[in-house]
Amino acid sequence: MHLLVIGGSDAGIEAGLAARSMDPGMDVTLLVADRFPNFSICGIPYHVSGDVPDWRDLAHQSADDLKAAGLELRLGERAVAIDPAARTVLTDAGALSYDRLVIGTGAMPLRPPIQGLDELGAAEGVHELHTMDDTLRLMERLDQETADSVIIIGAGYIGLEMAEALSARGARVTVLERFEQVMPRSLDPELAAELASELGSRGVEVQCGATVASIARDGTRLAVTSQDGRRRTADLVLVVTGVRPSTELATGAGARLGAAGAVEVDRRMRTGLPDVYAAGDCVQTYHRLLGRHVYLPLGTTAHKQGRVAGEDAAGGDRVFAGVLGTQVVKVFDRVAAATGLRDAEAAEAGFTPTTVDTVADDHKAYYPGATPIRIRLTGDRATGRLLGAQLVGHLGAEIAKRIDVLATGIHHGISVAEVADLDLSYTPPLGSPWDALQQAARQWSRLY
Amino acid sequence: MHLLVIGGSDAGIEAGLAARSMDPGMDVTLLVADRFPNFSICGIPYHVSGDVPDWRDLAHQSADDLKAAGLELRLGERAVAIDPAARTVLTDAGALSYDRLVIGTGAMPLRPPIQGLDELGAAEGVHELHTMDDTLRLMERLDQETADSVIIIGAGYIGLEMAEALSARGARVTVLERFEQVMPRSLDPELAAELASELGSRGVEVQCGATVASIARDGTRLAVTSQDGRRRTADLVLVVTGVRPSTELATGAGARLGAAGAVEVDRRMRTGLPDVYAAGDCVQTYHRLLGRHVYLPLGTTAHKQGRVAGEDAAGGDRVFAGVLGTQVVKVFDRVAAATGLRDAEAAEAGFTPTTVDTVADDHKAYYPGATPIRIRLTGDRATGRLLGAQLVGHLGAEIAKRIDVLATGIHHGISVAEVADLDLSYTPPLGSPWDALQQAARQWSRLY
Repeated sequence: MHLLVIGGSDAGIEAGLAARSMDPGMDVTLLVADRFPNFSICGIPYHVSGDVPDWRDLAHQSADDLKAAGLELRLGERAVAIDPAARTVLTDAGALSYDRLVIGTGAMPLRPPIQGLDELGAAEGVHELHTMDDTLRLMERLDQETADSVIIIGAGYIGLEMAEALSARGARVTVLERFEQVMPRSLDPELAAELASELGSRGVEVQCGATVASIARDGTRLAVTSQDGRRRTADLVLVVTGVRPSTELATGAGARLGAAGAVEVDRRMRTGLPDVYAAGDCVQTYHRLLGRHVYLPLGTTAHKQGRVAGEDAAGGDRVFAGVLGTQVVKVFDRVAAATGLRDAEAAEAGFTPTTVDTVADDHKAYYPGATPIRIRLTGDRATGRLLGAQLVGHLGAEIAKRIDVLATGIHHGISVAEVADLDLSYTPPLGSPWDALQQAARQWSRLY
Repeated sequence: MHLLVIGGSDAGIEAGLAARSMDPGMDVTLLVADRFPNFSICGIPYHVSGDVPDWRDLAHQSADDLKAAGLELRLGERAVAIDPAARTVLTDAGALSYDRLVIGTGAMPLRPPIQGLDELGAAEGVHELHTMDDTLRLMERLDQETADSVIIIGAGYIGLEMAEALSARGARVTVLERFEQVMPRSLDPELAAELASELGSRGVEVQCGATVASIARDGTRLAVTSQDGRRRTADLVLVVTGVRPSTELATGAGARLGAAGAVEVDRRMRTGLPDVYAAGDCVQTYHRLLGRHVYLPLGTTAHKQGRVAGEDAAGGDRVFAGVLGTQVVKVFDRVAAATGLRDAEAAEAGFTPTTVDTVADDHKAYYPGATPIRIRLTGDRATGRLLGAQLVGHLGAEIAKRIDVLATGIHHGISVAEVADLDLSYTPPLGSPWDALQQAARQWSRLY
């Protein structure tokens, strides 16, 4: 039995490993279009910042590790077409047959409609940051050319992490975001403002509500003009405005598209084409609270979907449990995290949401170093169910795992009131008898 | 309607506040035997260490706050008998009638059978540490007398926290524990050894398997002799070998005793005596996994039970959700946390437990500062259910909230396999695509 996997990032690698783990007799081949199998794309900002000096360390596992696990890697070989009837994949180097196929083609950077963007590339100092090749190009420029000033277009998590990373290298950084807040897809404006304020206090200029109209060369520099006519110049421009699923190979083979134009899959990651699975940033994602598929490309999800695809391709029957949109970002010394639905998303989905906005210390105030955590908790008035939460606080305040506590509760359909019933741990240096989360939940329960 | 509460610690205060919150017209009187209502007993080690210079800061809320919330405090007045037929409590200052009564008499230090212990008290340098009076006596001694060397009898969490606190003050500390490990009631020996090793590396001598036979004066010092004949001397001895429930008032009124000799209550904290509730360290505690009552005195539980007692006394119908035994302790730069059942406890309760012992980094190794978390995960082979977990790791590795993630899952009956399905947050500085907990869960699932 031969499993062919297209793609060497999170979903593809996980699928290959899961298949081998399920059926050690399976032959597994991975087509990796570049030379960088199993690289942590989420780690790129920390290589740019200097925290991870050697880019090779960004690999979750080395190519040798993967080979030792029984995966055959075909590096630098790109799939160009799938023939599902013949169970064959054409590549730029030949043809490969398969018994089972996993498509893990990932996503592509979204290119916003900015005049001049198509003409300017990394050679001119206009960079994207989606692959290791993008990263090495950016690092080469940072090492060899002046990059005292940088404009980042897009204030999603990569934009903010790169603002920190480039500041750490000494650059003056300006972030332009077309929405009226940073992290517009993940955080309510009230909490986004706290991240923007952290960025401002570190010398990063954040301009929200600024849609970029054009980029042009201006001598050795680049000029970025927003729709309000304001013109800014910088040595380097980074365009990080999100991604879209890479679906061409799948649709070329006859796969259907689902949510937000991502490849349609069921919860066993089956595409509908015979013995063809797909996983990761190229596919739609089942959302547990919404009970339907959405597009929410994240590394954690790609790993989980890859595991399902790999196991099921090897004869297993694992079902993808679905996501809640849990995420966390560190911006300098602040951490923001979210899970579940925001108030407006919940209302749109037919819930009757109400949100409380509270502040509680991460641990007992009498013990040194206590810091406030801002918590927004969204519950359903009709059922009492917890729908979502957002937290912002200081690094070290266990923000990430606190959101995980709520994600675990929501996974099980917890009510807001029940959060206060949880038997959570307590010691004065690390918490309170009623944890910050429970204080917020009790606040919600008192009101509704 | 008059609610009388006996006890001014976590359970009593929470009961009074909850009753007022449920029924703002209720008169609430609290009998507080000492002058320290609502003090954080868990915070005492941090006053001794110097982290909390002013002991008054250990109050969760001040007496003025409590009065502002509508509680009448009778400080320094001790209940001596309850007459449930007459709905009257006799105190050392008179008699008080009630419509509803909450007993929150807490616990008393266990006094191990040590020769000489009954004759030696704080005046001679042999201290207990259960009340603020105990604390002030200890601090007075530390301020005024030599305390270069201290022997702590008992290596539960208070013993270990005090070992750190007294070391911080410059004392040479020896901890004697009669069991063969520290934290015998909470941690498996493998993880307890990591805490003992941390203590050792900080200059604390830990002697397990050392049952103290006698304490005697030795000039200006104290001599502590263990059953193996070994004699140690110190300036000060601290006896912290656990607690037993204070039940005399309740049993004197006819209340029954339940698990481990604690006051029997149902899950609405009713004692069986008409309109008499009890909560906190004096009562038995419902254990969600065992489905029966145990004795597990902890501050978090006292707060939750007090809330149930107060609300129900005020006409509410809240039911105590029960505990999992979740706890956490910080010992110097290490944190140990546990929830649920240990392997032997689970077997005794009729489960078919299996435990894996794994190590996983708290965040991606490529990002600076990653530290290993040792994880012991216990699951039931018959059902796949997660039964318990213990974690030891470095301060800053989000150990406390990681145990809370699992406590939340166990609250909902999560299976070990389902831990890997949870949509947990990830960013390289704070986690991994498969969180350490999920790596442990997958390890368990691969084996069973």
